[in-house]
Amino acid sequence: MIKVGIIGATGYAGCELVRLISLHPEAEIAAISSVSFEGKKISDVYPSYIFLNDMVCETSAQVVKKSDIVFAALPHGLSQELAEDCRDNGVKFIDLGADFRLESEDEYKEWYGGTFLDKGLHKKAVYGLPELFRENIKGKSIIANPGCYTTCSPLALAPAVLYGLVELKGIICNCASGVTGAGRKPNQGNHYPELNEGFHAYKAASHRHTPEIEQTLSKLSGENVTITFVPHLLPVNRGILATCYADIKQGVSFDEIRKAYEDFYKDEYFVRLLPDGMYADIHNIKYSNFCDISLHHDSRAGKLIACAAIDNMVKGAAGQAVQNMNIIFGLDEKTGLEIIPPAF
Amino acid sequence: MIKVGIIGATGYAGCELVRLISLHPEAEIAAISSVSFEGKKISDVYPSYIFLNDMVCETSAQVVKKSDIVFAALPHGLSQELAEDCRDNGVKFIDLGADFRLESEDEYKEWYGGTFLDKGLHKKAVYGLPELFRENIKGKSIIANPGCYTTCSPLALAPAVLYGLVELKGIICNCASGVTGAGRKPNQGNHYPELNEGFHAYKAASHRHTPEIEQTLSKLSGENVTITFVPHLLPVNRGILATCYADIKQGVSFDEIRKAYEDFYKDEYFVRLLPDGMYADIHNIKYSNFCDISLHHDSRAGKLIACAAIDNMVKGAAGQAVQNMNIIFGLDEKTGLEIIPPAF
Amino acid sequence: MIKVGIIGATGYAGCELVRLISLHPEAEIAAISSVSFEGKKISDVYPSYIFLNDMVCETSAQVVKKSDIVFAALPHGLSQELAEDCRDNGVKFIDLGADFRLESEDEYKEWYGGTFLDKGLHKKAVYGLPELFRENIKGKSIIANPGCYTTCSPLALAPAVLYGLVELKGIICNCASGVTGAGRKPNQGNHYPELNEGFHAYKAASHRHTPEIEQTLSKLSGENVTITFVPHLLPVNRGILATCYADIKQGVSFDEIRKAYEDFYKDEYFVRLLPDGMYADIHNIKYSNFCDISLHHDSRAGKLIACAAIDNMVKGAAGQAVQNMNIIFGLDEKTGLEIIPPAF
Amino acid sequence: MIKVGIIGATGYAGCELVRLISLHPEAEIAAISSVSFEGKKISDVYPSYIFLNDMVCETSAQVVKKSDIVFAALPHGLSQELAEDCRDNGVKFIDLGADFRLESEDEYKEWYGGTFLDKGLHKKAVYGLPELFRENIKGKSIIANPGCYTTCSPLALAPAVLYGLVELKGIICNCASGVTGAGRKPNQGNHYPELNEGFHAYKAASHRHTPEIEQTLSKLSGENVTITFVPHLLPVNRGILATCYADIKQGVSFDEIRKAYEDFYKDEYFVRLLPDGMYADIHNIKYSNFCDISLHHDSRAGKLIACAAIDNMVKGAAGQAVQNMNIIFGLDEKTGLEIIPPAF
Repeated sequence: MIKVGIIGATGYAGCELVRLISLHPEAEIAAISSVSFEGKKISDVYPSYIFLNDMVCETSAQVVKKSDIVFAALPHGLSQELAEDCRDNGVKFIDLGADFRLESEDEYKEWYGGTFLDKGLHKKAVYGLPELFRENIKGKSIIANPGCYTTCSPLALAPAVLYGLVELKGIICNCASGVTGAGRKPNQGNHYPELNEGFHAYKAASHRHTPEIEQTLSKLSGENVTITFVPHLLPVNRGILATCYADIKQGVSFDEIRKAYEDFYKDEYFVRLLPDGMYADIHNIKYSNFCDISLHHDSRAGKLIACAAIDNMVKGAAGQAVQNMNIIFGLDEKTGLEIIPPAF
Repeated sequence: MIKVGIIGATGYAGCELVRLISLHPEAEIAAISSVSFEGKKISDVYPSYIFLNDMVCETSAQVVKKSDIVFAALPHGLSQELAEDCRDNGVKFIDLGADFRLESEDEYKEWYGGTFLDKGLHKKAVYGLPELFRENIKGKSIIANPGCYTTCSPLALAPAVLYGLVELKGIICNCASGVTGAGRKPNQGNHYPELNEGFHAYKAASHRHTPEIEQTLSKLSGENVTITFVPHLLPVNRGILATCYADIKQGVSFDEIRKAYEDFYKDEYFVRLLPDGMYADIHNIKYSNFCDISLHHDSRAGKLIACAAIDNMVKGAAGQAVQNMNIIFGLDEKTGLEIIPPAF
Repeated sequence: MIKVGIIGATGYAGCELVRLISLHPEAEIAAISSVSFEGKKISDVYPSYIFLNDMVCETSAQVVKKSDIVFAALPHGLSQELAEDCRDNGVKFIDLGADFRLESEDEYKEWYGGTFLDKGLHKKAVYGLPELFRENIKGKSIIANPGCYTTCSPLALAPAVLYGLVELKGIICNCASGVTGAGRKPNQGNHYPELNEGFHAYKAASHRHTPEIEQTLSKLSGENVTITFVPHLLPVNRGILATCYADIKQGVSFDEIRKAYEDFYKDEYFVRLLPDGMYADIHNIKYSNFCDISLHHDSRAGKLIACAAIDNMVKGAAGQAVQNMNIIFGLDEKTGLEIIPPAF
Repeated sequence: MIKVGIIGATGYAGCELVRLISLHPEAEIAAISSVSFEGKKISDVYPSYIFLNDMVCETSAQVVKKSDIVFAALPHGLSQELAEDCRDNGVKFIDLGADFRLESEDEYKEWYGGTFLDKGLHKKAVYGLPELFRENIKGKSIIANPGCYTTCSPLALAPAVLYGLVELKGIICNCASGVTGAGRKPNQGNHYPELNEGFHAYKAASHRHTPEIEQTLSKLSGENVTITFVPHLLPVNRGILATCYADIKQGVSFDEIRKAYEDFYKDEYFVRLLPDGMYADIHNIKYSNFCDISLHHDSRAGKLIACAAIDNMVKGAAGQAVQNMNIIFGLDEKTGLEIIPPAF
């Protein structure tokens, strides 16, 4: 059994990791930590878990010692030292935060205001979006687990961008996320009566996931891609829908695009390319690691409209982290993640 | 007192008209009709109204006879004969359906599959989006009341398009609507457990409101505009958010755009142009006739992002119809519509 | 015009008062205050109000000076001194808090842990539940506006208790409230993802509204009534449903009970006694001052089941306060409150 | 592997069975049927299942032939003949409908209007509420799987009733259910805009689950118990909360009651008796087979308040059916049901 440590276990992503690792046949939770709830049981924070997981939160140092692999779900800036600890202790490290996602220190400075403390460490880190970069992940020890928007947006666009079927200029990712994406800490904007029955954009063209999406699309295309990314806040618990727009290149048919997607995703268990006429819906992938993709054609305006739906807490966080763990330990990627999404 | 008739009073738009006219100091409901509930009280259908409005649904012929003005909230195709009746009886007519919205019969055929029964009547009809076409509306007898998406999308873009500040090619209207937009009739897609906690696009690049938005933008710009319009279904009762994207023209600054909007909307009571940093939110205009607009700049990609929020049942249907009535009867446009949106 | 001051205007009840007074034809807001937002505009706190009410929050002393009547929506314990100020300035005072609701200082101590600072003042205060105690309210200067649960529960039971149709022992008030009842301040229990799709009881048999409901029922019956009161938290913004159970007295028929209710409420505009077969639903009274009541008979167990639905922010707080203002100023009780509840 | 047939697979309970059996390590779905969707794939009806379960609906006769055990989720009245077929084919039968739940044919007639077609068959059927009647279930071939309200209400009250700690007269079960309880078929009452933000009682003291709850409590107590049962409809997808009230017998302390519950449920994996101060919440058991119970004391009125929360589709339907299957096949009762409820 793989011994798993979870640091930041009482945040939403951490708590979801607890649930998913509990279902995993080849892994078990060795220890958990939480700065806010040290000494408390996870089930004191999440009564859903009572009697099923009453583990007590320890310090992060204790967690590192007891683990073969550590998952960290921390505010950005706090993962770098932890990654060093893990490296020094021979422990694998999957970071659900943002510290290792951007390869360019300049971009990290610009969007997060931080620096790379140990540049060698950043060199070793790989970006863990398996459907796009699986080969890089195998055998690695430091994984930057992608953010939620930055998983579904590139998956919606990857085949079109990789095969040069759409213009790289003018791509728009219009996204909408459930509230859990904003974390466990209550604030006025997420207070029930002020969010319920509401819907609005936020951080339009200024959200920190922008450079991360661009980094992925740039890698796929081999060119510097600039996108327009506008997130919105949905009055639901879970789920992200990315509705992406790109101009279809002259001479490319919509059929070619569909075939490219079919080909690209044919062996990807977690990507469900929906038949013509269906629409990706966050309702249909909740609690699972699936990414549903639907393709639509604006033939009048010559645009591809690609929708991708994920559960922001699973494929957009904890589930993908488990998928990455499976890869680096040489397990079947689906292990512990063969969850049928409930129909309602 | 203006005698108002409401045809199709038991649909959602009709029922909202009943509520709004009841609040109107210069108008009163003379009669209501409903094909499905003839002989029944409106409060049998909507128990919210019990003891406050227990009017019985009559036939549409009876309604026309008793009214100075008739509002019709009917499925498309059914308003043309009714408009003739009203004309013949000297009754003003506001159509909340689609029959008179498109000026081109070809487009009507293409998108709705119908024909113009009486072309003269269509010539007389005017498109009732007061903030853009107020002068045309005054003194008219047949008003085509715009649809919901087709109110907020053009309002979000009008100043930029009118003053030539953005490229007309490549405009995207990414919209999301509350469930009441789909009407009173239950169906599987709107069944509570299948919609709740869900979010998806529908009729991408094929929704009937597309040519109507284009018609408005074409009038404003003087050129044929083709847009990409993708609606989504939100798990909320009311409200539409339009998030619109347009390329800013070379040499135009975002400040110029903001000033153009301020100038254009400065006397429009129902348009609230929000200060920099705020975002239009459907939460903040519910039950009111306001359209909140917020402007955002993607300086990296050179795009204007304009958000507009309306209550689809008020500014997107019944409220705008009352606003049009006020105009054609020479009343202050705000009469009966000075509703402060509840804070929650 | 009556000059109204609102103290605690940025809380939910205060903010709702702002909205209702704005609609009132005989009253206007003279000043508002807020400890947390002094110097800020109410529309900074509630963007729904932007451009419609941009009043700045002053101090409570300033508010008292500018007003004919002051509404206070404050945490308990803070209203007593304010009431003295109002008295000394000849200003009428309506307290939406709990300080003047209980007539017994012992009960106030037991449930709130406070004392009566000025016993004379408490003697002058009257309990403002107009449908039950209208005559007491007329001409008074200090009104204790009832709480939300304490409005709907007694209204559900009043005729049965007053006319001795049910046993006073064993009465149960099983209630469920929307989230606004817990106020504007975010906390973990009201955080969207932890409340959404949830439902639970809280403060079972220990909620502070218990003695207030008992006080009202005791007055009506002339005996000391002890009830069982269990509130629940509903994942909706507004509304309270009280489902009350009482044993029907031997020899009393359900018909007699229904007739007693019809008789008792026949002139009460704000109480809508629903016909047999209908159920009181919070959906149908939202944003209005109505209390819908439905009566049901458990003939097998000999019980009356009386349901009452109110909007906790209107009839359960701000609306009832306006109703009380209308009474003490000799206005028609309905003034400013003839709101048709929206059908959705 | 146990070969499972599911009849009525496209209803909500049937569809949930499909999901649960897919997770079961010792069972597999042999065939499914649906009258409404014969020849269609289950994933055509529930797109959540696409590519994961694309089984085609057959006839019920085909299902019986291929199965070791048949689950039927049918409207009442349709299970009796099916049960005969199963018996004749040596196939075990678990009925999620109501046909075999009531032991008294008179009561079945009174509440359902039907008769017992084959009285011998009804004699063989056992009522499958394992925590209360486990020993009866072992080795049986026809199981009447309890309804949703009829699972949580008795579990909330069982120890108190069994050990004679509360009065049997005057018991009240005030319950609230999520919308899935009303099934897959859309109707006006469940239409999103008319249910959302609403809450109301229905079928007060006249719901068909009343005699079933009474039958269970009568068996436990050895006396004829009459209860008052009032269900309410909650605007959530899943979950039932039963808030039950009973008079504590003279001389019995609340501590004794708590100890009786602890003792009675100490070995029941699926019943989680919550510590003092916690409240059973439907939020915390969603998607799982747990029943959370919390006990509260109204010391002023001498009442026990017992809350029980279940997922109406799992412990209230499909999950309990699987639990029953495990019992009759001699498997560990938890097999396939060790689901940690998600924290949000």
